[in-house]
Amino acid sequence: MKIAIDAMGGDDAPKEIVLGAIEATEQFDCELVLVGDKEKINKVLATKPNWNRNKISIYHADEVIEMGEHPGAAVRRKKNSSIVVATRLVKTGECDAVLSAGSTGAAVAAALLGLGRISGIDRPTIATPLPNSEGITLLLDSGANVDSKPNQLKQSAIMGAIYAKYVFGIHNPKVGLLNIGEEPTKGNEQALSTYPLLQSLKTINFIGNVEGRDIPKGTVDVVVCDGFVGNIVLKFAEGLAKTMIDLLKDAIKNSNIFSKLAALVLKSSLKKLSKRVDYAEYGGAPLLGVDGCFIICHGSSKAKAIRSAVGITCNYIKNDVVQHIKENVIKEADVENVKE
Amino acid sequence: MKIAIDAMGGDDAPKEIVLGAIEATEQFDCELVLVGDKEKINKVLATKPNWNRNKISIYHADEVIEMGEHPGAAVRRKKNSSIVVATRLVKTGECDAVLSAGSTGAAVAAALLGLGRISGIDRPTIATPLPNSEGITLLLDSGANVDSKPNQLKQSAIMGAIYAKYVFGIHNPKVGLLNIGEEPTKGNEQALSTYPLLQSLKTINFIGNVEGRDIPKGTVDVVVCDGFVGNIVLKFAEGLAKTMIDLLKDAIKNSNIFSKLAALVLKSSLKKLSKRVDYAEYGGAPLLGVDGCFIICHGSSKAKAIRSAVGITCNYIKNDVVQHIKENVIKEADVENVKE
Repeated sequence: MKIAIDAMGGDDAPKEIVLGAIEATEQFDCELVLVGDKEKINKVLATKPNWNRNKISIYHADEVIEMGEHPGAAVRRKKNSSIVVATRLVKTGECDAVLSAGSTGAAVAAALLGLGRISGIDRPTIATPLPNSEGITLLLDSGANVDSKPNQLKQSAIMGAIYAKYVFGIHNPKVGLLNIGEEPTKGNEQALSTYPLLQSLKTINFIGNVEGRDIPKGTVDVVVCDGFVGNIVLKFAEGLAKTMIDLLKDAIKNSNIFSKLAALVLKSSLKKLSKRVDYAEYGGAPLLGVDGCFIICHGSSKAKAIRSAVGITCNYIKNDVVQHIKENVIKEADVENVKE
Repeated sequence: MKIAIDAMGGDDAPKEIVLGAIEATEQFDCELVLVGDKEKINKVLATKPNWNRNKISIYHADEVIEMGEHPGAAVRRKKNSSIVVATRLVKTGECDAVLSAGSTGAAVAAALLGLGRISGIDRPTIATPLPNSEGITLLLDSGANVDSKPNQLKQSAIMGAIYAKYVFGIHNPKVGLLNIGEEPTKGNEQALSTYPLLQSLKTINFIGNVEGRDIPKGTVDVVVCDGFVGNIVLKFAEGLAKTMIDLLKDAIKNSNIFSKLAALVLKSSLKKLSKRVDYAEYGGAPLLGVDGCFIICHGSSKAKAIRSAVGITCNYIKNDVVQHIKENVIKEADVENVKE
């Protein structure tokens, strides 16, 4: 298994990306190709003299797409940018997957132009795992598309179910449509038109509409929504979890000496909780629907997040998610043809 | 100040509503009229013999709108239902405000039919306070309308700013448009069209687009969005806060005896945190844009939530929010006319 890593993408690139890659090679059975400015990458590697020479190599690329650039135009123009080169390595078969913490827009553009879409899929979608009280809930789309057509949400449902099954090992995952009420008559126009489409699918276990509160409860495994809603929920979740941990820490700090001692004893419980709601623990999110394995990481990813994302990527490749998506898209199309 | 309370609306009505009303009269300077089944209301009052006879009265109404009914049709048909009668008491001037924990749809229908809209407002909007790290962030619309027109979001911004100022005492409240990125070029069609409208307003302090994470951070006072998005965020927040508290309790429960002792000491800190994220503490949410004071409470409201909601209602009446909205809508319209 060989993964191309966009070493230049992300707020703390290349440092945290390279350090994360080094950590990942200690944990996972894979080869990593660091794509980007050779000199800068080598500087970071030099800080960890024991990095594994058999598992990490460098592929030089001298351009970088900056956060402010127009994604589509930049990807077309900067053919030697790290993200474009890394994607090309997958297209040519030299690598099995690409991983980037660069701008989401640039990642989507690079994936679409470099790998193309799976036949039968109109738009790719980002599937982000959110921690719930039991394990994870997969939220998609969490930001690749806005103003999605109901048919695109249908495709998201098919892909999300496969990803939940093969990467997170959830048997017959429960798929729900994110809405403002459980009844099929509730919601905006998009949700109202999407409901019957999801109901007609044969390869997924559609449980109907779900509400915001069902995500952290863990009563649903795959939650389908428009990228506008998904992205807002995702960022809100990150913010709220952080605020709550901060409030708890403050409450402890401002309490009396006994409470402080107590807090010390409770430290491990608190740490466990922080870990539970730390999105970095869950690593990258796949861009589902492109014809190849493309994993997107949070722009603010630190080494730990990159390491987790490499783990997710290994599972993704090993379980042949792209192939399963292709098969189920064909199965659903057959169902439609029979109906007609 | 006299408030009509729909004693029959809510999952735990009339019990929790009546108990909440009794508590409210101990805390706030107002008269309450309990509207609903006289016999049932009296039964609850009888459990608290010391309730204040000078501040609480009963207004009999023998019909109830059930959760499953079509709101508009039910409000039209059941002219003697508690929510319709309570609203009528405001229309006729016998009461200054109405408060209901019944179905949101029925509340919106009763308000629209019974009180009408403020001139210049197309649709009413629900403004819900969400706790942030410093105080509260007002989220609107949190569920009255879906597929809102940009012009309706503009009206929400005007009304939200007034509510934040006069009820929560926030000076020159910062108003943001909920979006998936800070740049004015980000978002779905609705957000893209709304941005310039908000920018053109003269009576509000528009700070541009805000993201999901800004809500709990408290960097914005009033967040404007479509009711579909707002309702999902609101319910997600309730669910996530609950899940996190549960996880923390679990972590403590499953730890060793020292941690348990520590937890006992920390109990007050934990309680403070729970209180901080407990939406019941923040009481009801106003239906802004109707020509009268209408406060909606969560369907699952317990006595405490009703008590808080009465407090909010008193502030709402005292500060003449409806009048301020009317004035600012006219001011903004003048600005538009001058421009043309």
